[in-house]
Amino acid sequence: MFTHAKRVLIGRPMRSDAAGHQLLSKRVALPVFASDALSSVAYAPDEILLTLALAGSLAALQSFWVGVAVSAVLAVVVLSYRQTVHAYPSGGGDYEVVTTNLGPTWGLLVASALLVDYVLTVAVSVSSGAHYLTTAVPWLDGHEVVIAVTLVAVLTVLNLRGTKEAGLAFAIPTYVYMLSIALMVVVGFVKMATGTLGAAPTAQYDLVPEATHAEGLVGLGGAFLLMRAFSSGCAALTGVEAISNGVPVFRRPKSRNAATTLGLLGSIAAAMMLSILVLARASGVKVVENPATQLVLNGKSVGDIDMDPAIGQIAKAVFGDGSVLFYLVTVVTGLILVLAANTAFNGFPTLASVLSHDSFLPRQLHERGDRLSYSNGILALAVAAGVLIVAFDAEVTRLIQLYVVGVFVSFTLSQLGMIRHWNRRLRTPQSGDERSAALRSRAVNVVGFMATALVLGVVLVTKFSHGAWITLLLMALVFVVQKLIRSHYDATAVQLRVEDWSAKRALPTRVRALVLVSGLSKPAMRAVATARAASPSSLELVSVVRDSSEEERIRTAWEASGLPLPLTLVSSPYRDVTGVVTQYVRDLRRSNPGEMLVVYVPEFLVRHWWENGLHNGTAAALRRSLVRIPGVVLTFVPWMLGEDDVVEGRQLVNDPFRPALQAPPRVKEDESR
Amino acid sequence: MFTHAKRVLIGRPMRSDAAGHQLLSKRVALPVFASDALSSVAYAPDEILLTLALAGSLAALQSFWVGVAVSAVLAVVVLSYRQTVHAYPSGGGDYEVVTTNLGPTWGLLVASALLVDYVLTVAVSVSSGAHYLTTAVPWLDGHEVVIAVTLVAVLTVLNLRGTKEAGLAFAIPTYVYMLSIALMVVVGFVKMATGTLGAAPTAQYDLVPEATHAEGLVGLGGAFLLMRAFSSGCAALTGVEAISNGVPVFRRPKSRNAATTLGLLGSIAAAMMLSILVLARASGVKVVENPATQLVLNGKSVGDIDMDPAIGQIAKAVFGDGSVLFYLVTVVTGLILVLAANTAFNGFPTLASVLSHDSFLPRQLHERGDRLSYSNGILALAVAAGVLIVAFDAEVTRLIQLYVVGVFVSFTLSQLGMIRHWNRRLRTPQSGDERSAALRSRAVNVVGFMATALVLGVVLVTKFSHGAWITLLLMALVFVVQKLIRSHYDATAVQLRVEDWSAKRALPTRVRALVLVSGLSKPAMRAVATARAASPSSLELVSVVRDSSEEERIRTAWEASGLPLPLTLVSSPYRDVTGVVTQYVRDLRRSNPGEMLVVYVPEFLVRHWWENGLHNGTAAALRRSLVRIPGVVLTFVPWMLGEDDVVEGRQLVNDPFRPALQAPPRVKEDESR
Repeated sequence: MFTHAKRVLIGRPMRSDAAGHQLLSKRVALPVFASDALSSVAYAPDEILLTLALAGSLAALQSFWVGVAVSAVLAVVVLSYRQTVHAYPSGGGDYEVVTTNLGPTWGLLVASALLVDYVLTVAVSVSSGAHYLTTAVPWLDGHEVVIAVTLVAVLTVLNLRGTKEAGLAFAIPTYVYMLSIALMVVVGFVKMATGTLGAAPTAQYDLVPEATHAEGLVGLGGAFLLMRAFSSGCAALTGVEAISNGVPVFRRPKSRNAATTLGLLGSIAAAMMLSILVLARASGVKVVENPATQLVLNGKSVGDIDMDPAIGQIAKAVFGDGSVLFYLVTVVTGLILVLAANTAFNGFPTLASVLSHDSFLPRQLHERGDRLSYSNGILALAVAAGVLIVAFDAEVTRLIQLYVVGVFVSFTLSQLGMIRHWNRRLRTPQSGDERSAALRSRAVNVVGFMATALVLGVVLVTKFSHGAWITLLLMALVFVVQKLIRSHYDATAVQLRVEDWSAKRALPTRVRALVLVSGLSKPAMRAVATARAASPSSLELVSVVRDSSEEERIRTAWEASGLPLPLTLVSSPYRDVTGVVTQYVRDLRRSNPGEMLVVYVPEFLVRHWWENGLHNGTAAALRRSLVRIPGVVLTFVPWMLGEDDVVEGRQLVNDPFRPALQAPPRVKEDESR
Repeated sequence: MFTHAKRVLIGRPMRSDAAGHQLLSKRVALPVFASDALSSVAYAPDEILLTLALAGSLAALQSFWVGVAVSAVLAVVVLSYRQTVHAYPSGGGDYEVVTTNLGPTWGLLVASALLVDYVLTVAVSVSSGAHYLTTAVPWLDGHEVVIAVTLVAVLTVLNLRGTKEAGLAFAIPTYVYMLSIALMVVVGFVKMATGTLGAAPTAQYDLVPEATHAEGLVGLGGAFLLMRAFSSGCAALTGVEAISNGVPVFRRPKSRNAATTLGLLGSIAAAMMLSILVLARASGVKVVENPATQLVLNGKSVGDIDMDPAIGQIAKAVFGDGSVLFYLVTVVTGLILVLAANTAFNGFPTLASVLSHDSFLPRQLHERGDRLSYSNGILALAVAAGVLIVAFDAEVTRLIQLYVVGVFVSFTLSQLGMIRHWNRRLRTPQSGDERSAALRSRAVNVVGFMATALVLGVVLVTKFSHGAWITLLLMALVFVVQKLIRSHYDATAVQLRVEDWSAKRALPTRVRALVLVSGLSKPAMRAVATARAASPSSLELVSVVRDSSEEERIRTAWEASGLPLPLTLVSSPYRDVTGVVTQYVRDLRRSNPGEMLVVYVPEFLVRHWWENGLHNGTAAALRRSLVRIPGVVLTFVPWMLGEDDVVEGRQLVNDPFRPALQAPPRVKEDESR
């Protein structure tokens, strides 16, 4: 049943040797890596506008300059990562850069930050995508959580199937998205220039500033609000690091192609964001968290109206509400957000598998599933993102407060690592050209470090109480757990290693064997035969008796059997078999530490599951209990009901227990080697 | 955790030799066995009144005569069972009588009927008890299902604890109940005689007959209704057979004392029922199923009022509403109903254990729990009764339609068995006195058989469509399942029995051993040593490799180890270890049917449960999968993390694997016997 459902959903298993990389041209690589970075344009401007709206209409007009600041940081980060791409073409990303240059503890910190941020990428992108979907299909309004969780489930299944042929599937919607946004921007700018640009659906409303910001963007409060808007806008920078992890899949020259793609990506993202902010201003777009208190029409509250995201409102202003192009822009934007979440579904399992390989995460995360994807990592990401979406009601504005912290921790430490890298390079003798190139690169990374550290500070200060503390807590938790896992694995590895082969080749000096029987039926006799065939130093039958009639019965059977073995009766006045046997075995083990103890248990197998209900299941209970005693070897001798169904007098062909009065010949060990 | 909760609820385990019987005097035996029979007085009159009410006020006046008919049957049944008590003093009850005289199939039918009826006794009594509780405590109204299920749970726990000292606990409330009902009857009769008896709360209302019975008790319809009332009233007969099961616990002369108690019980029950019917009529008690349609006050419907049971209404009329004696009668009646349910908690597990001993029910029902009670039977009864209570909304009127069928099947067959018993006795030569006594006894049983068979017919005809079909279906189901279980056990017993000890003492001719390893770590080396110590005919290492790097690793370790054993590599292109190993073992077993196959699996044990999450659990998965293959012996060699934590160079004292270049000495079998 389960297997069948799994086959339908996931597909047939794939052979390990089917793994391998398909190399990507720049034309295909751009969309594959771009969806994360470009999709943030779908919510970053909204968050800038929404934060500034708290200080009223005049403040909202500053959105363009916040966008310029974000673009400046984006430019710095892109330039810095072009260095990384050249210096570390292996695709290890920030984790490798930091581990190599600053040591494993800092590397682990970066990894923790990135793991948390991947989860947030899925939560934010999918929640935003669900919001776009409800913009295009209004009757879905109010079901954002269900939609978002469903989208995560769909992504999970698709990724478990594997996304080898996903290149083209990514390329088309990403190009359609870029083209449709470009079309919207060009048409919008032309209409702006000719004065024919329509008004956004929210253009008619006036903004009511919050009481604390009634004066607009003035004083400390104003500066803080501006910085918060900037922090939220920095969500546009996430996804830039994706290319530095992806260098190996580029065509040759890998590093140069990756660096070019990175530059292209940065330029497009910045251009898109700025254009959208300009159009939003020109068409009078308002975005607020709480329409009922923040928006007024002719001095009266407008109530709790539904607000479309900025791109949706601009599309309505440029193309007209209900037009085909409006739907195209909205739907494609929603789609690109889901694809952005998908990049996390690539990034998280890959990073987790590297960390698992380095013994920081459970080993299962390094195992490839039926379809060669890291299934356990995919499932872990899906569950974590699902929990976040439900906990935050799929509200992008609340989730975005947790976002960006992780990625900027990673950016900052990565830049610091790169500075160390160049410093080390500069210490080795080299030609003048190489030296001046290294000096130039180091300068770029120093600027990058200062910029990202500054942004990280701003983000932490402005978002801490709004939710960033949760991110820091999660990062700390992930970090500590990974440390603990590593120390467990290290301890285990040391203990498992065989230092002295000759000592470990040694055989036990004495073997004591017990056969647990409840009666001398055929299964018990087979267990006895198995035990005798193993030639232990001593062998006894052990039977638990609960009353004198049981004792009588087993004693009679033992005498009738003619077995040349002693019989030990263990009395169980409280009728509990498992506990008494476990105690007897533990005592024996303790009093004879120098002997190897082997316990033989006859196991009675039935042909149908329901027949199990008709037998006591003592063997199963003993299995659960005895398997936990260190140093006691446990042997199960199965006997299946019906296997002796043969004509009277004819020996069963496949019965290995044909008469033999002696134990079988001793082992002939392969001495020819 | 679970063990601790169990200790608090159930108490400490008791030794098997603590089992034993406490013999009861008549004074104590009467209340112990009486609660079931006497408690039916709490609902049987209600059901008679309720059924007759369908034909209007005049019909309801016939209730006394229905009561007389029920009492007559009761007298016949009591007289018949006095024969049984003398003839079968071993306490086997109807199951023994019928099995002995009519054969095991009829015995099994009786047992099925009784099992179903025990479940119904609990459901009916507890539901009725809950109804009395809500009469005394009106704010509990509407929560009858919850109350009833809670009462079943309490009874379950008490019975799991064991009811050895329950004699006194039963005697006091039963006597209080009998005395309080007697007091109510005496006071009521005096008030009746002096014309000072008050009116019942429902005396003011008029009964509206159903459309089909508008003419009263006339024609076929009227006769049918009268018979239905009689059938429902026969619920008063349940519990009579309890004494015939309980003969062994009476003081000597056992049979005579039991017979006297039976007579006493019958008289008291009949007297109580008739008195209550007289008082109900005198005080104008009305009992209907649906007050809104069946009751009118001055021609107008009274709506959906709450109705008290008849005893409650009479107590109000006799002692006055809110008086202490009213509360005493109501609460004690409720209590006695719960005690009646408790007799089923004694009867069901005892009968189930007898059936289990005869291989008709799973063996677990014959095992005594921690407190020497048949815990599995108690739990089975509780679950079944709970399901019935929930399914029928704890409504006594609906449950009573299912009731009585089982007990009358048992009565009828038991009487038939007794007739056979006397026939057989009469065939043997004996003195004239003995012969005439036997003839007399047979006459009693013939009358008993005819009466109970007639009642059974009436019950089946009148109740079939109202619910008795469910009982018949359940009885048939229980019967068939028991037959199937018996045939499984019979087949198993034949197969397990060893006919030829010398053949079964034989040893396997060849033993092939495999050691499953993933690397040659310490756990693997211990498994290898264990396997070598058992001197198999052939021994190989088997390792699953998923790719060439794994193959390289295991080959290098094998060469380093210097083990004189061949290494078999099984490739798993789909990365699935368990499936590949299972297939390999199955193939090996199939191609070498004459060899015994032993598979050694190193088992890696961790100290804390959460550490399990950090390891693959391959051994556990292999255990689940390999243990199902017939004919393959499975050996687990445990190795606990940390067991090698010793100072460098010092050998662990309790390590049985001290250097030995040879296998251990061969078994010294105990030939002295």
